[in-house]
Amino acid sequence: MNHNVVTDRPTFVTHLECSISGERYDADRLHGLSRAGRPLLVRYDLAAVRARLSRDEVETRQTDMWRWRELLPVRGTENIVSLGEIETPLIPIPASGGPRVLVKDEGRLPTGSFKARGLVMAVAMARELGVKRIAMPTNGNAGAALAAYASRCGIETIVFCPEDTPEVNVREIAMQGARVWRVNGLIDDCGAIVGKGAAEGHWFDFSTLKEPYRIEGKKTMGLELAAQLGWRLPDAIFYPTGGGTGLIGMWKAFDELEQLGWIGPERPRMYAVQASGCAPIVRAFEAGEEHAERWEDAHTVAAGIRVPRAVGDFLILRAVRESGGKALAVGDPAIMQAVEDCARREGLLLCPEGGATLAAYREALKTGEVDETEQVVLFNCATGLKYPMPPAPDTLDRHAEIDFAAL
Amino acid sequence: MNHNVVTDRPTFVTHLECSISGERYDADRLHGLSRAGRPLLVRYDLAAVRARLSRDEVETRQTDMWRWRELLPVRGTENIVSLGEIETPLIPIPASGGPRVLVKDEGRLPTGSFKARGLVMAVAMARELGVKRIAMPTNGNAGAALAAYASRCGIETIVFCPEDTPEVNVREIAMQGARVWRVNGLIDDCGAIVGKGAAEGHWFDFSTLKEPYRIEGKKTMGLELAAQLGWRLPDAIFYPTGGGTGLIGMWKAFDELEQLGWIGPERPRMYAVQASGCAPIVRAFEAGEEHAERWEDAHTVAAGIRVPRAVGDFLILRAVRESGGKALAVGDPAIMQAVEDCARREGLLLCPEGGATLAAYREALKTGEVDETEQVVLFNCATGLKYPMPPAPDTLDRHAEIDFAAL
Repeated sequence: MNHNVVTDRPTFVTHLECSISGERYDADRLHGLSRAGRPLLVRYDLAAVRARLSRDEVETRQTDMWRWRELLPVRGTENIVSLGEIETPLIPIPASGGPRVLVKDEGRLPTGSFKARGLVMAVAMARELGVKRIAMPTNGNAGAALAAYASRCGIETIVFCPEDTPEVNVREIAMQGARVWRVNGLIDDCGAIVGKGAAEGHWFDFSTLKEPYRIEGKKTMGLELAAQLGWRLPDAIFYPTGGGTGLIGMWKAFDELEQLGWIGPERPRMYAVQASGCAPIVRAFEAGEEHAERWEDAHTVAAGIRVPRAVGDFLILRAVRESGGKALAVGDPAIMQAVEDCARREGLLLCPEGGATLAAYREALKTGEVDETEQVVLFNCATGLKYPMPPAPDTLDRHAEIDFAAL
Repeated sequence: MNHNVVTDRPTFVTHLECSISGERYDADRLHGLSRAGRPLLVRYDLAAVRARLSRDEVETRQTDMWRWRELLPVRGTENIVSLGEIETPLIPIPASGGPRVLVKDEGRLPTGSFKARGLVMAVAMARELGVKRIAMPTNGNAGAALAAYASRCGIETIVFCPEDTPEVNVREIAMQGARVWRVNGLIDDCGAIVGKGAAEGHWFDFSTLKEPYRIEGKKTMGLELAAQLGWRLPDAIFYPTGGGTGLIGMWKAFDELEQLGWIGPERPRMYAVQASGCAPIVRAFEAGEEHAERWEDAHTVAAGIRVPRAVGDFLILRAVRESGGKALAVGDPAIMQAVEDCARREGLLLCPEGGATLAAYREALKTGEVDETEQVVLFNCATGLKYPMPPAPDTLDRHAEIDFAAL
């Protein structure tokens, strides 16, 4: 039915490359981090893609993430486990944002978050490479996406999340066939357990950037954005940044698109948005550091970006700096205010992390970092329905006299 | 950006027609029910559409619901208040359904349910016709969609829902700018309040089928399905039936498509699925009645189809009978089992109403009403994330010795 998924494709992966040392690794073999302990990046024969594929041809294809197949690592079509990875819409928010502000609503993806992009790819590759058992630390949404795709193809999953992860996330993960554990700690504490179990051979480690393919799925956000905007990138992108896979992925996507000749050298300014209660990347950015130290006592309403330490810290910082953007922190009150305004005035219920991007945009507008004439894309990374909302009002007695004018 | 929404279009509406008497009503004027107290249907100059538009041309357009604009009632593009009404994916569920069973995942629409289709259309028409204040009874999802679209264009909304409506729905409605009240009763009790207030001139009544345009939005499910399946309709459709707007709308869509020459006379068997605890349509179907009496003491876990009385009862029954289908009731345990199986085996979290369609399909398979070689579409009308899920497991102490093999 979906030609993008069932069509056999040539694949163009040449090798994997250590993101810090440039060392080459074979494709088609199972890898975690590089020998230097850093993420591996997938490299393609882009000259061959360029000779074979035009952006016009891509535009004739069904608009889901598999239309980008020549820029994706999956070789065996039969390994793709799809739940309908649609192109997510761009929604104007003129009243709470501005005249040229668009929200990319990633909550429309399977399991309600952008994590589906990364996990559908990583699970397909794990399947291709024979993995039978996967473990992952998660603040909720990544675990849900992993559980969904892995259960669908019979791969066993064990998921660890911080003990205060919202109940709906934990239940969703369990419903979708994973064994899920709450842990008395934060996501990097969960990550330590996953790492230990992996070292002892109990499972394959699916932590953010510790396997090479989630980033390839996430980069489709950048590919999609380019196509949706008529192959002109926006002036600025505000991206909620925990592990940063999506930001790194988009930056990689833009580079690949330029090498294909589908876009020019222009780039959006990339704004990595964090919460004031957990802002290791912002601190490192401001201090001019290349790496970010662990953030102690992390706390924020935006659980998805409560990531005290990111293995791809230097890749995030590098992309932000090269783009002329910044790393920005916003407080929880500004986040919640942004969520409320956007829901009330635009009819669009953001998740707190999405709210953080709107809050950061508003702040950047005030400081003159952006201006209203610029085209800006904010990433709403998940449906707002998974998050706590203020209580609703009282009951009306239908047997009583109703004062309609007062309702 | 979205050409389907911003493109000026010719419109082809000729008039409205009473669904029971055939009496004609002017288009471009505000209407509720017909003088006979029944729903009004929108009629088009389909010969003119046929002369002007081909299905191949439709296929070149962006795949959202506005690609069908010649078959929709909105005349003024500027009245469309879009939140990104994407084409919803069809997802195979081979393990919990069968080899040719597809779920149309309507939870991907704005506000997480198929109600967005009807409400985006009804709000656009209300705006076109000058309505400033709207009230609605809802089991949750319709109210959320109304609130979102109406708030987005400054129309005031007052929403009434049964007092046991899940908290997440009520909060979502409130967040999106409606004034929302719980009522100690069921949806038709809420409807009575809305009707009284409308009669007294406090607001316009947006109850299911009491204004003519929600059905035009809902019919896009049928249009979309035809295009997605290569202009061949499936053998059977299982549809969760409360007010029945979608079922009636799809039946109307198929008729319009045939008049355009885009499909032939073949039709799917339409199965109206209800819960055993609230099955007025099933009772009327089995008794051979043309109308359905109110179901007393309605109760089911699938709140969206807890509709004791439907103003379009005769239209639902007529479509089901003409199609050679049936009205089917399933119990809550079978519904919950279907939700659980589909989540665990397919990674797809259905809402209870969507679960009801899977449960009904399974039952129909047992009785020989359908067989495995037939292509079947089940409608999952909303994201499963809005609904209660079983509790998740205990906390793991990261400081203790972890027995990895036992996890």
